[in-house]
Amino acid sequence: MHSKRWVVLGLALLNCFVWADEGMWTFDALPKATLKETYGFEAPPTFWEHMQLASLRIAGGCSASFVSPQGLVMTNHHCAVECVEHLSSRSMDYVKNGFWAPKATQEKRCPDMELNQLIEITDVTQSVKEATLNLYGLAFKHALNEVVSTLKKDCQSSPQLRCEMVNLYRGGFYHLYKYQKYSDVRLVFAPEAAVAFFGGDLDNFSFPRYDLDVSFLRVYAENKPLASPHYFKWSFSEPQEGDLAFVSGNPGGTSRLLTAAQLRYVRDHAWPRRIARLSELRAMLKAYSERGPEEKRTAATLLFSVENSLKVIRGRHAALADRNFFSAKAAAERALQDKVNASAEWKDYASVWTSIENIVAKQTRHAPEYLAVEDAFRASTLFGFARALLRAAEEREKPNASRLSEYSDANLPNIETLLTHKAPLYPKLETALLRFELEKIREALGVDHPFVKTLLGKDTPARVAARLVSKTQLADVKVRKKLWEGGAQAIAQSKDAMLLFAKLADPHGRAIRKIWETEVETPATKEGERLAQLRFQLLGASLYPDATFTLRLSYGQVKGYEENGRPIPPLTRMGGLFERATDFEPFLLPARWKKAKARLNLNIPLNMVTTHDIIGGNSGSPILNAQGEVIGLVFDGNIQSLGGDYVFDAQLNRTVAVQAMGIVEALDKVYGAERLLTELREASKTTPAAAPMPPPAPKAAQPPPPPPAEMPAQTQETSNPATQPPPLKEGAKPAPAAAGPPAP
Amino acid sequence: MHSKRWVVLGLALLNCFVWADEGMWTFDALPKATLKETYGFEAPPTFWEHMQLASLRIAGGCSASFVSPQGLVMTNHHCAVECVEHLSSRSMDYVKNGFWAPKATQEKRCPDMELNQLIEITDVTQSVKEATLNLYGLAFKHALNEVVSTLKKDCQSSPQLRCEMVNLYRGGFYHLYKYQKYSDVRLVFAPEAAVAFFGGDLDNFSFPRYDLDVSFLRVYAENKPLASPHYFKWSFSEPQEGDLAFVSGNPGGTSRLLTAAQLRYVRDHAWPRRIARLSELRAMLKAYSERGPEEKRTAATLLFSVENSLKVIRGRHAALADRNFFSAKAAAERALQDKVNASAEWKDYASVWTSIENIVAKQTRHAPEYLAVEDAFRASTLFGFARALLRAAEEREKPNASRLSEYSDANLPNIETLLTHKAPLYPKLETALLRFELEKIREALGVDHPFVKTLLGKDTPARVAARLVSKTQLADVKVRKKLWEGGAQAIAQSKDAMLLFAKLADPHGRAIRKIWETEVETPATKEGERLAQLRFQLLGASLYPDATFTLRLSYGQVKGYEENGRPIPPLTRMGGLFERATDFEPFLLPARWKKAKARLNLNIPLNMVTTHDIIGGNSGSPILNAQGEVIGLVFDGNIQSLGGDYVFDAQLNRTVAVQAMGIVEALDKVYGAERLLTELREASKTTPAAAPMPPPAPKAAQPPPPPPAEMPAQTQETSNPATQPPPLKEGAKPAPAAAGPPAP
Repeated sequence: MHSKRWVVLGLALLNCFVWADEGMWTFDALPKATLKETYGFEAPPTFWEHMQLASLRIAGGCSASFVSPQGLVMTNHHCAVECVEHLSSRSMDYVKNGFWAPKATQEKRCPDMELNQLIEITDVTQSVKEATLNLYGLAFKHALNEVVSTLKKDCQSSPQLRCEMVNLYRGGFYHLYKYQKYSDVRLVFAPEAAVAFFGGDLDNFSFPRYDLDVSFLRVYAENKPLASPHYFKWSFSEPQEGDLAFVSGNPGGTSRLLTAAQLRYVRDHAWPRRIARLSELRAMLKAYSERGPEEKRTAATLLFSVENSLKVIRGRHAALADRNFFSAKAAAERALQDKVNASAEWKDYASVWTSIENIVAKQTRHAPEYLAVEDAFRASTLFGFARALLRAAEEREKPNASRLSEYSDANLPNIETLLTHKAPLYPKLETALLRFELEKIREALGVDHPFVKTLLGKDTPARVAARLVSKTQLADVKVRKKLWEGGAQAIAQSKDAMLLFAKLADPHGRAIRKIWETEVETPATKEGERLAQLRFQLLGASLYPDATFTLRLSYGQVKGYEENGRPIPPLTRMGGLFERATDFEPFLLPARWKKAKARLNLNIPLNMVTTHDIIGGNSGSPILNAQGEVIGLVFDGNIQSLGGDYVFDAQLNRTVAVQAMGIVEALDKVYGAERLLTELREASKTTPAAAPMPPPAPKAAQPPPPPPAEMPAQTQETSNPATQPPPLKEGAKPAPAAAGPPAP
Repeated sequence: MHSKRWVVLGLALLNCFVWADEGMWTFDALPKATLKETYGFEAPPTFWEHMQLASLRIAGGCSASFVSPQGLVMTNHHCAVECVEHLSSRSMDYVKNGFWAPKATQEKRCPDMELNQLIEITDVTQSVKEATLNLYGLAFKHALNEVVSTLKKDCQSSPQLRCEMVNLYRGGFYHLYKYQKYSDVRLVFAPEAAVAFFGGDLDNFSFPRYDLDVSFLRVYAENKPLASPHYFKWSFSEPQEGDLAFVSGNPGGTSRLLTAAQLRYVRDHAWPRRIARLSELRAMLKAYSERGPEEKRTAATLLFSVENSLKVIRGRHAALADRNFFSAKAAAERALQDKVNASAEWKDYASVWTSIENIVAKQTRHAPEYLAVEDAFRASTLFGFARALLRAAEEREKPNASRLSEYSDANLPNIETLLTHKAPLYPKLETALLRFELEKIREALGVDHPFVKTLLGKDTPARVAARLVSKTQLADVKVRKKLWEGGAQAIAQSKDAMLLFAKLADPHGRAIRKIWETEVETPATKEGERLAQLRFQLLGASLYPDATFTLRLSYGQVKGYEENGRPIPPLTRMGGLFERATDFEPFLLPARWKKAKARLNLNIPLNMVTTHDIIGGNSGSPILNAQGEVIGLVFDGNIQSLGGDYVFDAQLNRTVAVQAMGIVEALDKVYGAERLLTELREASKTTPAAAPMPPPAPKAAQPPPPPPAEMPAQTQETSNPATQPPPLKEGAKPAPAAAGPPAP
């Protein structure tokens, strides 16, 4: 990184103004004035309403959008790959070979996929504040649980609705987001993994890039394609550098308002620990994959997710390790503190930083045990089932407000979905993962720790894992369903090995969780709110909140950048894919592609970079031109974008996307997906019902600097189980970090 | 860690006084006055001369000592395990089953082991300073190379001698260390790995502990046991808490005088990178080991070394991540800076910290490429051979002073030893390791980097590794010997695949090394010297230098400690070993032990902790009572000792040792090693020639605090290839860190 760049950035942080193209804006507070000033862009309210309703969220942690009035949905291949994997079998590997339904009847239902369409945002801040007024500690927590749960339950008036409480500006605002749920989602098209993830982990987060990371799904309702009047039309022409563009998607989480003490914790404790864990898990899974083709197939998704997370975390750690970056952050904090100390009016707030520093000290002390006991077994799906069943049964007997928050009434449908999803489980892989987790727990706590003695006795992780996986019935969805419906009595009577094991573990988990919530999580929430209040009063609420895995608008341009003095143009072309190919993974092109080469226009754009401010969770977001037409599909960021968790760097941070023309060229010349192409073409001819065209926007290749503005507060640091289902797998690519990055 | 403790430590750092029992003292500057004041201990010069001459160093990175007049040597099992492994075969696994030579003729020669006995220390500071006076940059470097090489060559008057230049206080003093070399070393006794490393990686660096980490070797001269008049007698009685004791051994390296900027680099860059690498390598080797018993046997030593390094680095990183520790370090530095700024006399020195900070910025920028290009292939022995052969041939044609420093005339014998050692190589493991290294290089630099393109072309790491290992002849020591002796011409004519590969890689390595040496290493040396001069003048030279893998004396006591409020007594007993045992590794006792249980005195001490200030390299050091008799054998430190690289914490830092009585009990009741026991007993009866008994020392369970003293400077940060042979394997347990921790 160039130090000069960080000096500029430091100034930006100090003065709290927003960078060109910075920001992830909620749809109820769009930066319309800035768009007009910077890009001369204006549009009627219907333009934005239409954009909101054509945008989708995938419950697991991705974005998507409607691209035809018949419920056709576009997202990334890596956002649908679990479905593709679940539909595969030993005899037919759709991940490897790709999937295409030439006829509508051949579209296959994804066993476990839910799409959400944001239909309403309600500001409930007043109700929440009133319900928790003057409360502290456990009383605050219970009152908050109660009011949130009640509001969500009232909102969720039908099973087709999903309501979520979104905490913006860390306690500054509480908004209730109401979604239309779509659960019958079918696979229409997915290319071969080899071209959808061309270059594999090596090319991940890099640019220039050559990936066809796209898939098409279709939403069904009552066994028929859904009528979806709100959808994005397709653009069949090449975008130009400097073109204004929009991204409408669901960024997972950012940490741009953490204090220096909190960032130090992340840099010195959270990330080094995660880097060690993920590095080891990666090597373990790689070796596992090499045992045979079936092992390779079944471990592929998890391996991808682990490698992706590892690269993300290493990138974030590198940003925090940058001395100039950190100094700039610290200087900005000192500037705010000086402001507070200078005026009697704000004196009461001066203690907030010390308070947070003290909480961080406790977090540092308790995190190793919290992680190894309560937050353990992340990679073991079967243990996750057992614990969810056990805890749900116990918690449902309690009053709503005093439950572990993920078992509140409002959240029980999520737990049920989790427990009853039909995705296949691979016992051999499960055994390896459970063994890995047991080994890591023992390593973290030492053999003399009571929790380790409880789990292992004088036995070994490998043997315990093998025994549990071979003896549990929880891999069977019918068994889980029965136990879920049977409640406390069924759980008490069950002799299932994994359930008994989870019972042994549970008191230990609950004990450290209580300490964690009392000493770390709740105080951090309270102090975070206090800092938020201060910042609101000092700086105003004119800025965007940290990302929360909810729908946001980013604006920006199609634009290249410079790396080590070398200019990188914004578009790559189809021909580059063939130049980069070798005879070996991860650069091995599918046979179908090799054959199609002669037919392809090698000059068609394939991938593209833009200046949008995005982050994990935005994967699958459409990139739209000023007319609201699809010009690209977000699938990644460049390596310089990884520090975006903490700061947006307009000079180097780039969104990486599949260009729309490349998608069409491949569908046509490689896959002969005529039915799909026709649907896209037809959809683009008709004018969607509620999508009036905005006036054409004047181009602004070099937009003037944005007006100084100030940044509201958010210090989200600890995880919030209320919005976080028990984790079943190591963080998926677009980690739904809304629940609170960084993990402890 | 308790913050109160760090407050005290902070005061200590600020005031620059030495803690009780702190210090690794050179034998030409022993802390005799402190010993008299604190412990009332005095001894004649012969006591110390005898101690020096009875102490040994193992060239690979351990310590040892003579324990009989017939050349019998005691060290750790883990210090001799490579020999044990090399003597093993598919049909006879001495690592697993242990080794015992009931008759003298059954003692087996270690294919590749060298012991060094320190016989003379000469201060050559004056000559070095004169030769490099007023020189900078490359001129300084060449002049230093020249004078060091000449002095070493002059000193090494026979092949039985080894001379090394020791840079104390980072340029403060240059001392020439002359060693007697012993190359005919034979294995006498080694227990089963299961009991020598009982508890494995899980118990490593922990206490209470139950390990028999001991082995016995014998030095031969002219095919007969060496007459060794200087040896340590054995103590057959139980030590008491508070007993004064000495450790005489070779601590590898410490970093107690690095500046805050340098420590920040280590915390934020060096260690996170190493943690990622080692975590991944560990998982890879574990999976490899599980492929079969032969894989397990051949990978065991490396896996141990990797796990050990990983635990060390994580411990060191944790110490640096401790906020209070780091604040204390920074405060101490500011105090020194204030002193400098306050007086016109020292003004010239005020720039030294900024200078070092600027060098660290360059180090941060260049390290990733330096590591991935020049410092790469660490785990590949065959590549190491190829590069050493290639470079030696090229460098020997140049004038001594302008060579890469590890190929100076004085160092060529080390290169020759390295190339001609007879240890077996395992092609399958070599292939896996070379592949791993190639994968890591590609990952670090990206597929478009010219070095990666040179190494791989459009091929894969796995294929390239398999091809090179199968086609090279360098596994054959005769081939290497021939190429070594043939020099430049033989190398030019050779078509060996690995040699050709090393030739391809070499220009890239040399290019980045030149940048590294010019911009990082040499300036760091110069500025380090300047800081050293300042500290000498301000603080005096009354203190010990950072460790340099040379003979040092540590003094201390047998003493327990407190952990989380729980007292930990200084001794563990034989019975605890059986209580901790399970039916599975790493807690599975050998059958011989289970059978012997009834015969054993379960109350005999087995392991022990003391307050000695030691670090990696001290493994195998004897612990001696005030009479100079062996009461223990250092094999580890507790987990709290790992921060000892940066600071000695008298309250918690503990040396972990095998207690002498436990060794004797096992030799007697478990192994029936009568011949060995008799030798130890007989040796303890006679009075060694030059070992007059010191007056009995009064016990000092609570010694008075030591007098305030001040700390001289050392800022060793970059690696010094002059003292570092091309690495063949991932850092062995007692990493010969003398060459300069931390690695970049």
